[in-house]
Amino acid sequence: VERFTKEKWQDSHVPGVVTGLAWTAVGGEILYVESSLSKGIGKLTLTGNLGDVMKESAVLALEYIKSNCKEFGINEKVFDQKNIHVHVPEGAIPKDGPSAGITMATALMSAFTGRKVKKRIAMTGEITLRGKVLPVGGIKEKILAAKRAGIKEIILSNSNLKDVAEIKDMYIEGLEFHYVNTIKETLDHVLV
Amino acid sequence: VERFTKEKWQDSHVPGVVTGLAWTAVGGEILYVESSLSKGIGKLTLTGNLGDVMKESAVLALEYIKSNCKEFGINEKVFDQKNIHVHVPEGAIPKDGPSAGITMATALMSAFTGRKVKKRIAMTGEITLRGKVLPVGGIKEKILAAKRAGIKEIILSNSNLKDVAEIKDMYIEGLEFHYVNTIKETLDHVLV
Amino acid sequence: VERFTKEKWQDSHVPGVVTGLAWTAVGGEILYVESSLSKGIGKLTLTGNLGDVMKESAVLALEYIKSNCKEFGINEKVFDQKNIHVHVPEGAIPKDGPSAGITMATALMSAFTGRKVKKRIAMTGEITLRGKVLPVGGIKEKILAAKRAGIKEIILSNSNLKDVAEIKDMYIEGLEFHYVNTIKETLDHVLV
Amino acid sequence: VERFTKEKWQDSHVPGVVTGLAWTAVGGEILYVESSLSKGIGKLTLTGNLGDVMKESAVLALEYIKSNCKEFGINEKVFDQKNIHVHVPEGAIPKDGPSAGITMATALMSAFTGRKVKKRIAMTGEITLRGKVLPVGGIKEKILAAKRAGIKEIILSNSNLKDVAEIKDMYIEGLEFHYVNTIKETLDHVLV
Amino acid sequence: VERFTKEKWQDSHVPGVVTGLAWTAVGGEILYVESSLSKGIGKLTLTGNLGDVMKESAVLALEYIKSNCKEFGINEKVFDQKNIHVHVPEGAIPKDGPSAGITMATALMSAFTGRKVKKRIAMTGEITLRGKVLPVGGIKEKILAAKRAGIKEIILSNSNLKDVAEIKDMYIEGLEFHYVNTIKETLDHVLV
Amino acid sequence: VERFTKEKWQDSHVPGVVTGLAWTAVGGEILYVESSLSKGIGKLTLTGNLGDVMKESAVLALEYIKSNCKEFGINEKVFDQKNIHVHVPEGAIPKDGPSAGITMATALMSAFTGRKVKKRIAMTGEITLRGKVLPVGGIKEKILAAKRAGIKEIILSNSNLKDVAEIKDMYIEGLEFHYVNTIKETLDHVLV
Ligand SMILES: [Ca+2]
Ligand SMILES: [Ca+2]
Ligand SMILES: [Ca+2]
Ligand SMILES: [Ca+2]
Ligand SMILES: [Ca+2]
Ligand SMILES: [Ca+2]
Ligand SMILES: [Ca+2]
Ligand SMILES: [Ca+2]
Ligand SMILES: [Ca+2]
Ligand SMILES: [Ca+2]
Ligand SMILES: [Ca+2]
Ligand SMILES: [Ca+2]
Repeated sequence: VERFTKEKWQDSHVPGVVTGLAWTAVGGEILYVESSLSKGIGKLTLTGNLGDVMKESAVLALEYIKSNCKEFGINEKVFDQKNIHVHVPEGAIPKDGPSAGITMATALMSAFTGRKVKKRIAMTGEITLRGKVLPVGGIKEKILAAKRAGIKEIILSNSNLKDVAEIKDMYIEGLEFHYVNTIKETLDHVLV
Repeated sequence: VERFTKEKWQDSHVPGVVTGLAWTAVGGEILYVESSLSKGIGKLTLTGNLGDVMKESAVLALEYIKSNCKEFGINEKVFDQKNIHVHVPEGAIPKDGPSAGITMATALMSAFTGRKVKKRIAMTGEITLRGKVLPVGGIKEKILAAKRAGIKEIILSNSNLKDVAEIKDMYIEGLEFHYVNTIKETLDHVLV
Repeated sequence: VERFTKEKWQDSHVPGVVTGLAWTAVGGEILYVESSLSKGIGKLTLTGNLGDVMKESAVLALEYIKSNCKEFGINEKVFDQKNIHVHVPEGAIPKDGPSAGITMATALMSAFTGRKVKKRIAMTGEITLRGKVLPVGGIKEKILAAKRAGIKEIILSNSNLKDVAEIKDMYIEGLEFHYVNTIKETLDHVLV
Repeated sequence: VERFTKEKWQDSHVPGVVTGLAWTAVGGEILYVESSLSKGIGKLTLTGNLGDVMKESAVLALEYIKSNCKEFGINEKVFDQKNIHVHVPEGAIPKDGPSAGITMATALMSAFTGRKVKKRIAMTGEITLRGKVLPVGGIKEKILAAKRAGIKEIILSNSNLKDVAEIKDMYIEGLEFHYVNTIKETLDHVLV
Repeated sequence: VERFTKEKWQDSHVPGVVTGLAWTAVGGEILYVESSLSKGIGKLTLTGNLGDVMKESAVLALEYIKSNCKEFGINEKVFDQKNIHVHVPEGAIPKDGPSAGITMATALMSAFTGRKVKKRIAMTGEITLRGKVLPVGGIKEKILAAKRAGIKEIILSNSNLKDVAEIKDMYIEGLEFHYVNTIKETLDHVLV
Repeated sequence: VERFTKEKWQDSHVPGVVTGLAWTAVGGEILYVESSLSKGIGKLTLTGNLGDVMKESAVLALEYIKSNCKEFGINEKVFDQKNIHVHVPEGAIPKDGPSAGITMATALMSAFTGRKVKKRIAMTGEITLRGKVLPVGGIKEKILAAKRAGIKEIILSNSNLKDVAEIKDMYIEGLEFHYVNTIKETLDHVLV
């Protein structure tokens, strides 16, 4: 019963923070996935009132990065020497589903490499262990929420192209779409 | 079915104790977040009949402090050598929601630095991993409870300013408000 | 469906056993909090069909003692070298709520110091991490149970004074009340 | 829906097996508490479809023995070098309640000392951490079950004497009762 | 909603596989208990959609073997150097109850000793920690299932003799019954 | 409430990915089982919103490979030095049942040996610890889904032959079936 306001996109100026698009009972929403590292032993901590499936997305994103660390220039020792925390703010709202996978992978990669994320960019997509980006639902509502928040560019799975094609032009004016097949393409485009 | 009395603010004269504002079924309430350190291995223990989301706030507050310990002059070895206990008294009342985040962050920082908290100051606000303070609900009820308890100053998220603006002057007479965007601003203002 | 008799207070002649006052569906009851130490690694074991909140009271009591061990002359090595067991007899009765906090703190302190508890003394009160004793409910029923069991002296939170004031004289004849603000005051009064 | 027959008492010829009296939905029953040691690290394993309260009785019995091992001539190293298994046969029947405490303490003590238990003896009683034996319910039904099974001697809490006094002579003919206040008295009487 | 066919007994030619008789909602069934060892640290893994009570049977069987390893010529070091896996195929069917105890004990003993099990033999019976074999229910349905599957010999608890006596001759023609009191008798008869 | 499209089979060009056939509330589906290894200590992580029984299949597949590693030329040290992740994409769909056993065993073996899987091949079958492949249900719906997705060859348990025999020719035109009794036969046929 606590009230929340629809928020505008906020620049966080630090690595590890990525904007996602979620589909909740009250319509589309932007959400931030925050990740940070601290001295530790490789433990992953998840907060933000996340459901089982969303928690699995974070585990999956971390495993993808671990298995492919050489390709991304990350020293695999870091996985033993840092604890990793992933938080999705607005803890009063339960959050679930697989569509934050791409956002979590990007947030973790940003934290591990220290590279920031481009501004006013948001994304939604399920990921797989082999690094594919799968289509997700609620595309129209998510795009409306992104526009309302001041987002300029949106990353989607190639397989969601047909969902964007069905949306009236007036709703997507001023938005640029970037379609990807893999996590790798996403990171190449998004990390500064 | 045990009865409780509405209590007046009490000075605890020790670091690690911070006054929060909660919103329960019976209206606004002040609550104390107590934290203490003992010889240990870095384990965090939470007591006080806390719900999942409130427990997550404590985890989140601790992770924020760990990730930013250098900025606050805390030696990171302390996180391996002390156990940390956070307790929210009045165990008969279940407590949940994210709005004690700012109170928990302040209590932990007070315990780690040994700096006491200013007197007759209370606070409410959700925190994020990157250190933002988000708005929370129930502002009017919380302010009434603070006043009733003898609180003189209240810390809120900048985004809760509009909620205070809607409250009649008579209810907030004698109270000073301090609006913050970040945990850092809160600590600068509150720790002695 | 097993039957139990209302029992008389029994002297146990050993440290670590303290008489508490509980408030159950069938009225006030005396209960014993027993604690013992054995060779170990610092593990706390709780038995007696205790609810979550009562279990938390034991954790809280132990943390309070750990954080303040120097003040009580307890060598902090003991916390790594002993296992601690807390039991509340009459396992057929589920027990919950925060009001055994003061009893648990006293039982643990008695076990750690080897000091026995005064005879025919009972107590009820919630504790906090900073060592306060908070008021609890059901005072009248608890006092009747204590009297029936042959208790001579009762420890209560200072804030429960008003509850005793409302009870008719005939019910409290022969009982001595001792009001406390802190765990420390309790221990000073109760441990022999 | 599997059928079971009311069984006669069976001699097991080995230490660690003790006969208890239980009170189930279908009336009184004898049950065996079996315990065995194997090379290990001090882990306690419980089987037999036991409820939470009955599991706690085994933990409690073990803690009592650990805390008082010197008095019983048990080398405390054994608690680190053996695993302990407690099983209550007839796994199709859920079993709960505190009244097997005395039986579990006796079975464990028999296993640790290698001393066998007297024949055709059965017992029922809750135990406490300080070694008291508390009265339990269902005494009449338990005595009938013991007689039916060929038991000759029954151990009860002193406080259950009044329950036996209310039973007609014809039901207890040929049974010898032994009333105890403590686990120590029980063991002195029961272990060969 | 996946369909299964009533299967014929299959020879597995390897140690560690034993045929049991189960009683499910759709009548009697044969089931296989498979066990295997791999390099490890003594961990027991259970799969096959097993209920709590059936899981306990495997724990119990393993504890029995550990406690009596010398008698069976098993070096106790193996329990620290191997992981043990017990699987009951046909994962779509939930399985529970204590009657697979004898089958699990036999499968484990076969795996630990490397001795195979006699062909076309099946068994059902609860076990206890002291090595007794207790009677179980559903004997008639289990025998019909065994016959249908081509089983030639059946191991039962001595106390199930009366249940076999009540079955018409035509149903048990061609089957040989072997009645046991203990796990030891079972193993002597069944392991090659 | 997120929408998904029926997907076409996709080549992943890497070891560790295998195509399975599942039977869900909306008919047959192809699913991918992905597995990957990363530096670790032998921990198995499972993601993809999997039910208990499907999780057990992965445990079972891994135990089968561990117990038979020599036969497959896998050095058993790898099980201590790598963490293993198994993921089944499309996290919005709960997945359960034993029929992915064969797919999981193949994916893990592909990951451990580095051998890729033949293209356009899919499989369904329960596995057992001794390496058998058991029949599963929903064969007709699974075959239709495989054909729709562009699969050319399907691996089934020998005991599912009769289910294929009942399907009209027009539905299985262009598909090649390979019937197996064991995991070993499957791997010999499927791994390149
Ligand atoms: Ca929002
Ligand atoms: Ca929750
Ligand atoms: Ca209050
Ligand atoms: Ca009582
Ligand atoms: Ca319980
Ligand atoms: Ca609770
Ligand atoms: Ca019985
Ligand atoms: Ca159960
Ligand atoms: Ca079958
Ligand atoms: Ca299940
Ligand atoms: Ca699909
Ligand atoms: Ca789930």
